[in-house]
Amino acid sequence: MSDRRLTEHVHIIGAGLLGTSIGLALAEKGAEATLADVSPTAVRLAVDYGAGRPLKAGDEPGLIVVAVPPDVTAESVARALGENPDALVTDVASVKGSVLAELHELGADVSRYLGTHPMAGRERGGPISARADLFVGRPWVLAGHDGINYRRAGAIEDLILDVGGVPIEMSVEEHDRSVALISHVPQLVASAMAARLSDGSNKAIGLAGQGVRDLTRIASSDPGLWVQILSANAEPVASILTAMRDDLDTLLAALADPEALGARRAIADLIGAGNAGVARIPGKHGDDRRFAQLVVMIDDSPGQLARLLTEIGELGVNMEDLRLEHSPGAPIGFVEVSVVPEAEASLVEALQARGWRIAGAS
Amino acid sequence: MSDRRLTEHVHIIGAGLLGTSIGLALAEKGAEATLADVSPTAVRLAVDYGAGRPLKAGDEPGLIVVAVPPDVTAESVARALGENPDALVTDVASVKGSVLAELHELGADVSRYLGTHPMAGRERGGPISARADLFVGRPWVLAGHDGINYRRAGAIEDLILDVGGVPIEMSVEEHDRSVALISHVPQLVASAMAARLSDGSNKAIGLAGQGVRDLTRIASSDPGLWVQILSANAEPVASILTAMRDDLDTLLAALADPEALGARRAIADLIGAGNAGVARIPGKHGDDRRFAQLVVMIDDSPGQLARLLTEIGELGVNMEDLRLEHSPGAPIGFVEVSVVPEAEASLVEALQARGWRIAGAS
Repeated sequence: MSDRRLTEHVHIIGAGLLGTSIGLALAEKGAEATLADVSPTAVRLAVDYGAGRPLKAGDEPGLIVVAVPPDVTAESVARALGENPDALVTDVASVKGSVLAELHELGADVSRYLGTHPMAGRERGGPISARADLFVGRPWVLAGHDGINYRRAGAIEDLILDVGGVPIEMSVEEHDRSVALISHVPQLVASAMAARLSDGSNKAIGLAGQGVRDLTRIASSDPGLWVQILSANAEPVASILTAMRDDLDTLLAALADPEALGARRAIADLIGAGNAGVARIPGKHGDDRRFAQLVVMIDDSPGQLARLLTEIGELGVNMEDLRLEHSPGAPIGFVEVSVVPEAEASLVEALQARGWRIAGAS
Repeated sequence: MSDRRLTEHVHIIGAGLLGTSIGLALAEKGAEATLADVSPTAVRLAVDYGAGRPLKAGDEPGLIVVAVPPDVTAESVARALGENPDALVTDVASVKGSVLAELHELGADVSRYLGTHPMAGRERGGPISARADLFVGRPWVLAGHDGINYRRAGAIEDLILDVGGVPIEMSVEEHDRSVALISHVPQLVASAMAARLSDGSNKAIGLAGQGVRDLTRIASSDPGLWVQILSANAEPVASILTAMRDDLDTLLAALADPEALGARRAIADLIGAGNAGVARIPGKHGDDRRFAQLVVMIDDSPGQLARLLTEIGELGVNMEDLRLEHSPGAPIGFVEVSVVPEAEASLVEALQARGWRIAGAS
């Protein structure tokens, strides 16, 4: 507890996934947090989970975190600023420009407001899905604006650090453009692709492999929430989407006559541009070139996988990532283990010596 | 070995990923296979891996499998038909209509040809990446046409079953439309999305989470191969892509004025159509509702994960799937374990009793 930075009493408005997770994370640090929500049930549930206590008369929170749906965020922030004249107020909505603009319209005192956006979430919402570790290691944007400086908002950065997040400073505009690119447009693209699947025969859908599955995974998102997000960030989203639409038009022209001069090159150019774009994503997923992948065949049972991982541990090799791949009903599975390239050859040899079957190495 | 169906000597033309994998799988069944390739090195490598022996004078294969790049498939099939007047010939190219059309043009005897397409592959190609189990549990399309009936092509179905694949009968046209939907268009969509990432700032890309990562994973595919595939299946691909382009235009109109009547509904309709489309994909990935997911927190070390899986095994619970999720540099990781819903509550309880920290359950 001694490593806690935050000293203020934090009040969280909105006991959904994010609000409750913040409360749980603060509770772990021994910080004082209170909760409110338009739904008394949500508050009771969040309190039961240990995310804080209900607000009571006489409470004077120093920091207020508004964690309500995007379309009521500005209104809720304005009210919090008005009712708590000494408190610093932040929000966690996924679009920042529209909130700030609405606060200006409402005449709110934005010298005590700095919006933020934690890059964390789960496919399921609500306090039941909350977890204290939701923000650990995740970027959490502090969206700066002219009305306040980052130093005045120090308590917000303390909160982010206390719950395990990584504070990233960006302007409001930079934030909104960034999330349009790495979150909002991907959502629309996944949805547009998934929508096409409705036209396919059952036989066609039955052929679906990992590629289309990964591509459409996020397409099961909530339409109501996304209407709010997308309409609040319409311009940056439209700008990227227009460029994509133009790329598709170029492709369609090439596909209309693949034998025409330049047609094959137009197709290759797009695939090549995709190669270049995806290579920019840091981290360890997909076919990250920073790590070597080796594929080990196992019986499709937890015992086998456990034994494999135990032996990798015994060999002193640090596993960077792991993917389990098995077909429904198949008696065997494949484990793709990512390790630093230097470790690959000796690991393959050592595992083979122990009787493991290496189905492939990079 | 007694369960082998195939009796013919199989000759494989093309010692790449697919050809070599077929050879390896046949070898496991004790079937006789020979290999040829324009690259003598590839053949030697495939033979070294145990995928068969080189073809020798006097060999009379009963079944020839052409596993060469799409743009030389028809030519190679026609030559095989001509040189082996009694043999049945198949190929494994990922587009079937263009191969058949070219064979007709070449005047080949298609009464001994039936094209197929195994829905299996890996991100890396070549004989080195081959594995005997590549086809286990995977759909393998037999693309029927008027010149031959499935019964005449019985040996091809035997081969598919012997290597562990699941034979699916489709017409050539049905196949090409199906793969356009579940493979070719997804490739283009992933590439078009990934291409946009080149415009983002490093800070923006640094915010990338699992959604955009999954969405662009296949964007690192080989442009040369995809130019061949897409130009050979241009019409079905263009038809789906046109519908997507039209959906994007509808969206762009809505985003141009999100306050206009009907704009929010247009956005919600697309997200909703995506919900419906993605729900059609069978299997256990993403947020498959057939299984319950629980998330367990672990130290980011192979030892911890091994211990968890050992204990799940000890508890007698069958793990349906496993996903490891951890941020680069973070000292902890999350393991998402999928189990049948009936097993969830007791597993959560048992794991907690053993001191595991459950970060979330469905």
